[in-house]
Amino acid sequence: MNKKILVINGPNLNIINRKGYGKLDLARIESTLQGEALKHGFEITSFQSNSEGKLIDFIQQSIEMEAAGIIINSGALTHYSYAIRDAIDSAGVPTVEVHITNIYNRDEFRHKSVIAPVCVGQVCGFEENSYLLGLLGLIKYLSTLEK
Amino acid sequence: MNKKILVINGPNLNIINRKGYGKLDLARIESTLQGEALKHGFEITSFQSNSEGKLIDFIQQSIEMEAAGIIINSGALTHYSYAIRDAIDSAGVPTVEVHITNIYNRDEFRHKSVIAPVCVGQVCGFEENSYLLGLLGLIKYLSTLEK
Amino acid sequence: MNKKILVINGPNLNIINRKGYGKLDLARIESTLQGEALKHGFEITSFQSNSEGKLIDFIQQSIEMEAAGIIINSGALTHYSYAIRDAIDSAGVPTVEVHITNIYNRDEFRHKSVIAPVCVGQVCGFEENSYLLGLLGLIKYLSTLEK
Amino acid sequence: MNKKILVINGPNLNIINRKGYGKLDLARIESTLQGEALKHGFEITSFQSNSEGKLIDFIQQSIEMEAAGIIINSGALTHYSYAIRDAIDSAGVPTVEVHITNIYNRDEFRHKSVIAPVCVGQVCGFEENSYLLGLLGLIKYLSTLEK
Amino acid sequence: MNKKILVINGPNLNIINRKGYGKLDLARIESTLQGEALKHGFEITSFQSNSEGKLIDFIQQSIEMEAAGIIINSGALTHYSYAIRDAIDSAGVPTVEVHITNIYNRDEFRHKSVIAPVCVGQVCGFEENSYLLGLLGLIKYLSTLEK
Amino acid sequence: MNKKILVINGPNLNIINRKGYGKLDLARIESTLQGEALKHGFEITSFQSNSEGKLIDFIQQSIEMEAAGIIINSGALTHYSYAIRDAIDSAGVPTVEVHITNIYNRDEFRHKSVIAPVCVGQVCGFEENSYLLGLLGLIKYLSTLEK
Amino acid sequence: MNKKILVINGPNLNIINRKGYGKLDLARIESTLQGEALKHGFEITSFQSNSEGKLIDFIQQSIEMEAAGIIINSGALTHYSYAIRDAIDSAGVPTVEVHITNIYNRDEFRHKSVIAPVCVGQVCGFEENSYLLGLLGLIKYLSTLEK
Amino acid sequence: MNKKILVINGPNLNIINRKGYGKLDLARIESTLQGEALKHGFEITSFQSNSEGKLIDFIQQSIEMEAAGIIINSGALTHYSYAIRDAIDSAGVPTVEVHITNIYNRDEFRHKSVIAPVCVGQVCGFEENSYLLGLLGLIKYLSTLEK
Amino acid sequence: MNKKILVINGPNLNIINRKGYGKLDLARIESTLQGEALKHGFEITSFQSNSEGKLIDFIQQSIEMEAAGIIINSGALTHYSYAIRDAIDSAGVPTVEVHITNIYNRDEFRHKSVIAPVCVGQVCGFEENSYLLGLLGLIKYLSTLEK
Amino acid sequence: MNKKILVINGPNLNIINRKGYGKLDLARIESTLQGEALKHGFEITSFQSNSEGKLIDFIQQSIEMEAAGIIINSGALTHYSYAIRDAIDSAGVPTVEVHITNIYNRDEFRHKSVIAPVCVGQVCGFEENSYLLGLLGLIKYLSTLEK
Amino acid sequence: MNKKILVINGPNLNIINRKGYGKLDLARIESTLQGEALKHGFEITSFQSNSEGKLIDFIQQSIEMEAAGIIINSGALTHYSYAIRDAIDSAGVPTVEVHITNIYNRDEFRHKSVIAPVCVGQVCGFEENSYLLGLLGLIKYLSTLEK
Amino acid sequence: MNKKILVINGPNLNIINRKGYGKLDLARIESTLQGEALKHGFEITSFQSNSEGKLIDFIQQSIEMEAAGIIINSGALTHYSYAIRDAIDSAGVPTVEVHITNIYNRDEFRHKSVIAPVCVGQVCGFEENSYLLGLLGLIKYLSTLEK
Repeated sequence: MNKKILVINGPNLNIINRKGYGKLDLARIESTLQGEALKHGFEITSFQSNSEGKLIDFIQQSIEMEAAGIIINSGALTHYSYAIRDAIDSAGVPTVEVHITNIYNRDEFRHKSVIAPVCVGQVCGFEENSYLLGLLGLIKYLSTLEK
Repeated sequence: MNKKILVINGPNLNIINRKGYGKLDLARIESTLQGEALKHGFEITSFQSNSEGKLIDFIQQSIEMEAAGIIINSGALTHYSYAIRDAIDSAGVPTVEVHITNIYNRDEFRHKSVIAPVCVGQVCGFEENSYLLGLLGLIKYLSTLEK
Repeated sequence: MNKKILVINGPNLNIINRKGYGKLDLARIESTLQGEALKHGFEITSFQSNSEGKLIDFIQQSIEMEAAGIIINSGALTHYSYAIRDAIDSAGVPTVEVHITNIYNRDEFRHKSVIAPVCVGQVCGFEENSYLLGLLGLIKYLSTLEK
Repeated sequence: MNKKILVINGPNLNIINRKGYGKLDLARIESTLQGEALKHGFEITSFQSNSEGKLIDFIQQSIEMEAAGIIINSGALTHYSYAIRDAIDSAGVPTVEVHITNIYNRDEFRHKSVIAPVCVGQVCGFEENSYLLGLLGLIKYLSTLEK
Repeated sequence: MNKKILVINGPNLNIINRKGYGKLDLARIESTLQGEALKHGFEITSFQSNSEGKLIDFIQQSIEMEAAGIIINSGALTHYSYAIRDAIDSAGVPTVEVHITNIYNRDEFRHKSVIAPVCVGQVCGFEENSYLLGLLGLIKYLSTLEK
Repeated sequence: MNKKILVINGPNLNIINRKGYGKLDLARIESTLQGEALKHGFEITSFQSNSEGKLIDFIQQSIEMEAAGIIINSGALTHYSYAIRDAIDSAGVPTVEVHITNIYNRDEFRHKSVIAPVCVGQVCGFEENSYLLGLLGLIKYLSTLEK
Repeated sequence: MNKKILVINGPNLNIINRKGYGKLDLARIESTLQGEALKHGFEITSFQSNSEGKLIDFIQQSIEMEAAGIIINSGALTHYSYAIRDAIDSAGVPTVEVHITNIYNRDEFRHKSVIAPVCVGQVCGFEENSYLLGLLGLIKYLSTLEK
Repeated sequence: MNKKILVINGPNLNIINRKGYGKLDLARIESTLQGEALKHGFEITSFQSNSEGKLIDFIQQSIEMEAAGIIINSGALTHYSYAIRDAIDSAGVPTVEVHITNIYNRDEFRHKSVIAPVCVGQVCGFEENSYLLGLLGLIKYLSTLEK
Repeated sequence: MNKKILVINGPNLNIINRKGYGKLDLARIESTLQGEALKHGFEITSFQSNSEGKLIDFIQQSIEMEAAGIIINSGALTHYSYAIRDAIDSAGVPTVEVHITNIYNRDEFRHKSVIAPVCVGQVCGFEENSYLLGLLGLIKYLSTLEK
Repeated sequence: MNKKILVINGPNLNIINRKGYGKLDLARIESTLQGEALKHGFEITSFQSNSEGKLIDFIQQSIEMEAAGIIINSGALTHYSYAIRDAIDSAGVPTVEVHITNIYNRDEFRHKSVIAPVCVGQVCGFEENSYLLGLLGLIKYLSTLEK
Repeated sequence: MNKKILVINGPNLNIINRKGYGKLDLARIESTLQGEALKHGFEITSFQSNSEGKLIDFIQQSIEMEAAGIIINSGALTHYSYAIRDAIDSAGVPTVEVHITNIYNRDEFRHKSVIAPVCVGQVCGFEENSYLLGLLGLIKYLSTLEK
Repeated sequence: MNKKILVINGPNLNIINRKGYGKLDLARIESTLQGEALKHGFEITSFQSNSEGKLIDFIQQSIEMEAAGIIINSGALTHYSYAIRDAIDSAGVPTVEVHITNIYNRDEFRHKSVIAPVCVGQVCGFEENSYLLGLLGLIKYLSTLEK
């Protein structure tokens, strides 16, 4: 049976096609990730919400789901949600932070991620490929844990 | 058919009669706005929530509702919800920020609005009339767009 | 006899047609305000100066003129003239702060108004309509005082 | 009839047994508090949510419930939720802030509580006993109000 | 034989009846604490001084006195006496910090305690009951150490 | 022939009777100072302006007037007018800074005087007597220069 | 019987003749103040200590001594001793802060006085005359209280 | 006919011979600039004022005078006059900022020029030659525009 | 012919096997990257230096080498070398920033990358795989450019 | 024999034709400067390096070369190389700082020059003419030294 | 007769054997220093106090004792006691600051010494040998003064 | 065979005789250190460079040279070279930081050493003797390691 990887998207990532990110589409991204995950013996469970509380609920479910890892793009919550940070930290599931854009050449407030310190690593700036690279990085990280 | 303007109120504005703002009443404010809007060929759809996530959900619905504009009083979320800011920015619907009180002579943390940079303008300090002035300002803004 | 409302404009607002604000014209704005004021039983006395000292002189004259209220756009002085702030505070005449542009999406130094804490409220971002909305807000504020 | 005291827990306190806090258990804490409250003629109504909005909804319900007081551990929201602060302030019900850990010897961001200024007092660092001490403090505070 | 708990008060707490704290009286507080302590098999040794040096001398004596714990209200020294912090840290006796008022809704400089990071926990805002709650918290903390 | 001392008042000190400073009156203050000065062989030349530029013009005139010293209350300009500071510094006439109120227990922005570093000394908080004390201090300072 | 005024000097003012302040002498200053005070129906009680604790002890004694006022030069403690600030505030005796030098043109750390906000006023920069001016200011302040 | 270049000097530059700048003389500087300008087909119109307002008035006149460029030394106003900045920006006439001294090795507050961002360039530290170099730079800048 | 990708390592990455990074080896990393690059029609040219100047020299050579892209781990220079930033920006070759560790959970000074704003994206925290992910991200980025 | 003036260029100025500075060319600039220098009895020795160390080596050589002065554009090193600052300061050769662009209307980090305080003066914003103006300023400065 | 060197230790250094510093012992350190001093014709007078005031008293006594120099470890007072700084500065006796630990890799607040600017030099991080090195440095410094 | 100690000097220390440090001479310092080292069974290998990169290269060579320790004066690089810090940290050779001057009473930027946290200790202010004291401190440190 395949191991689960959760792909979690925060506020406004359900409408990324609206502004700024060209022809991105969240459904297509999730589909691409599923395909890549299956090649490595993992399967993706996707979740998107505009609500910090529901995102935390889902991160906590990773415990019962015995998820192997998490890919998270917490949107603008990245910059102030210490509650999501604590959820990731408490759940104890290896988590990779991804961003579609290079958050370091946008508004000043986007330069700081409050969740980064409790994540394995961060990938940003590669548009939809940030997710794919994050997935590959997570899978490689998990394989070193097994050794 | 009248064009829609969304009037969105954030946390604790449902209990403004409890503290600090005299005999204000959200229902009466919404009713007054509806009356004024109809005079100019608009109609108001009101929404209040204490939840950042639901506020974002509703802002996103402005896209499908083809709303002409938004009047928003995001309450204390005004000062840290970069997620609401992104919602307004992504939806792309002209938005006016209003506040019942003069936020610049209250606590230090209320002096900064993180949503202001993505709004058309801001009106504060006129108690319930802040909403009315915001509505008139929005309608005038929309009329210049049409030209 | 109509009650007086002073409309005070600070530095560089006499040349707003030069840069950044499209086809704005201070004389036309003042004329529009006069028209609106008369409808409500007020009359406008306008004043513009590039000099902080003369602006303070005029604000102080509101005492002798027994002005009912002040609409002020103090231009760039908004951001550092504590002397204008003290003038407004000492005169004790209800004052509304207005700005043509949304000062919160321009240069960092424009984000702070040192006069805001002593004003009734603030209106910004609606171009020449900021003045009109400010006038309506002031008139409504004065009417509540009378009750 | 016993008077009501609300015990409110914020994000991630439902999984405190997962990380960092040893063998803590929220259900047991609530049960201990209920026992102690009954001795003093109060009864506990408990609530936990990972959602800021639902926490505010519940705090607002304290008005209708005619609650005598609130014990709150708002988790990581403590450090940025000005909306919860406003809810406590608007509801006007005496509130005591508690924390399981000593928030002053952990991460820098945990050193500041944005809700503390609107609370009666704060208790932190005594693990599950922080709640018990907070309850006793609240009851003593309420008894002085009655005099 | 009862175990010793030191109750240490810093500058100006000998004249708390003078200003701001109603009818508080340090002697009565110490007497109440003594009564409560005896119930749990502890006895209180009280000390007050306006001198940082004498407070440090007394904290150091806790070593020879084999004190079980310390309750300290270091008054305004709380906010800058790194020397008292080092004394608590070097003595190695479990210490609870208490404050009569809620230090988080007073002057900005009172919001930071430099001794908090080396204490077990903090209790503030419950007037004279802060001491009582602190004592109970300390006793409970000591009982968990014994297990 | 008596030596000249200039008494210079900045913005809004001409209307100190309007707000906050009880029954103060600038004319009476100047008259009191004149009387005191004559006793010591000095005479007062008074000047008040709301204009930074005119204040500088007058400070510069101290050179031609061969003034022995200056008493200045630069009002709110105290906190940002580096130009007045340079005028005092360039004129090279011994200057004493006075303030009617204790500027250190008012708004944060009033805590810093940019002219203080180029003055002989500062007197604040004694209402109209601040001027008198400043004058006596200046006269004593000038007498030590003569020795 | 004459009313008492306390003259309190903090650390290192006993050796002002050593460095930086020319031929100043604390004894002579105290003697001059005594002479001036007697003229106005007051008598001086002087105190100097290098110890913050002893300074606070003495300030507290002003209560029992029924002192009319305090002149204080708290030396370098001026810049960090919140405990002395609280002592002045709790004692409730009108206090004037004086400094020999102009603290605003020396080291950055000397620009802020933490006791200033609880004093009547401040005099600095007039060398030994700062004390004399402070005394005169205090006496004038006391005389207005009597009215 | 020669094209006009305005040479504008702010507060205290009319008395530069008083302090700090050796034997400088504003009239001689202006005369030297006139001579140099004529060689290149320009003529100088000089203006000095201690008043921010009059400086702004004069900068605005550059529009009607159809001035080719401006050389400005705004003295201490350089560091806080956002109103002069806006005047330069609104007038739209190429402006070069000059300073007699090296403002970067003097007081901290002189290190920041608020007008620099709207100028073509800056020259400082060359005493009276700063003006000459600024003029040459301006003329060279204007010649590239013509190409 | 394969297109060139430069892999540039800054100070101390030649001795990563010494401390903190387990059994990492720069040569092996470069070899792995070469293998991966060849699969996609690219070839790697590697360079390591402890000298900021030589790193800039090499980045500039990317122009003549007509490199398709750059993978850079600039080590501690990441946090202050604005000169490397300018080199990347001037060369105009698409650059991806990588870090072996998660720089956001280490020392405070490592949280800011001064080169990030001029890079395509950033990958950190995946040990040697950060390079591999960075390479894949760069190749995908280059492929979208071609479209 | 002509006296030597060193013209020193820092990192990335060898490729200024690549980005942002139009058709600038370092060789042409140096050639123009040589021509101008010869007219005044000086000759130019030019040096460019991307290495901070080599730039310092060359600045130090100014001692043995008995250079009359230095023109330096230290590129991005301007903003952090305290080592270059010390080299200029230790060499003791009069140095003029130049920049092609107006560094005050670019990135925030470019607003501070750490070498400015040890230079004679600064010229920026005149593109290649900044060098020429700097040279003229230096020559004029040297001529006043001779007097 | 030997010349005197004072060795002064501040708060908590009398209990250094309690925590953090292994088997250090203040008496042994003083004894070692005495032995070393005698070799060079000096003798040590030691003093330790937990009281800032007594430390200042002792530093002042160096004047009457005609001490040649001072070795001081002012413990945590190092970081805020501007009064000790002034004592050292006023006494005018060459003083060397020492610390047992490397204060630069401990808590942030320990990174700044407020007494360092008035000392000859600083030695830290060599445990008990910091005192010995400080003594040798002081003796060498004194010998250069004699030349 | 003697054990090696590296003495490393950074930028501008090769010309210390030029400015500010009297008659210091690096060669003589190195010679004195060699003499002292030999007495204790060590030998000195000296290195000076103005280049950060070469300094790092040399620090790395300490690994192959099996150096027992390092004495480093990294000059102005002390204040920003995180790359040198990492080199010291990675090499893992005990390192002592020395400075000729008391860096804490010079420019603000010299008050922070970025290498201090990874060094054994720091000695500053004793001119050339800082090196000698640093050497003795290092040797004593190494001898405790051997125990």
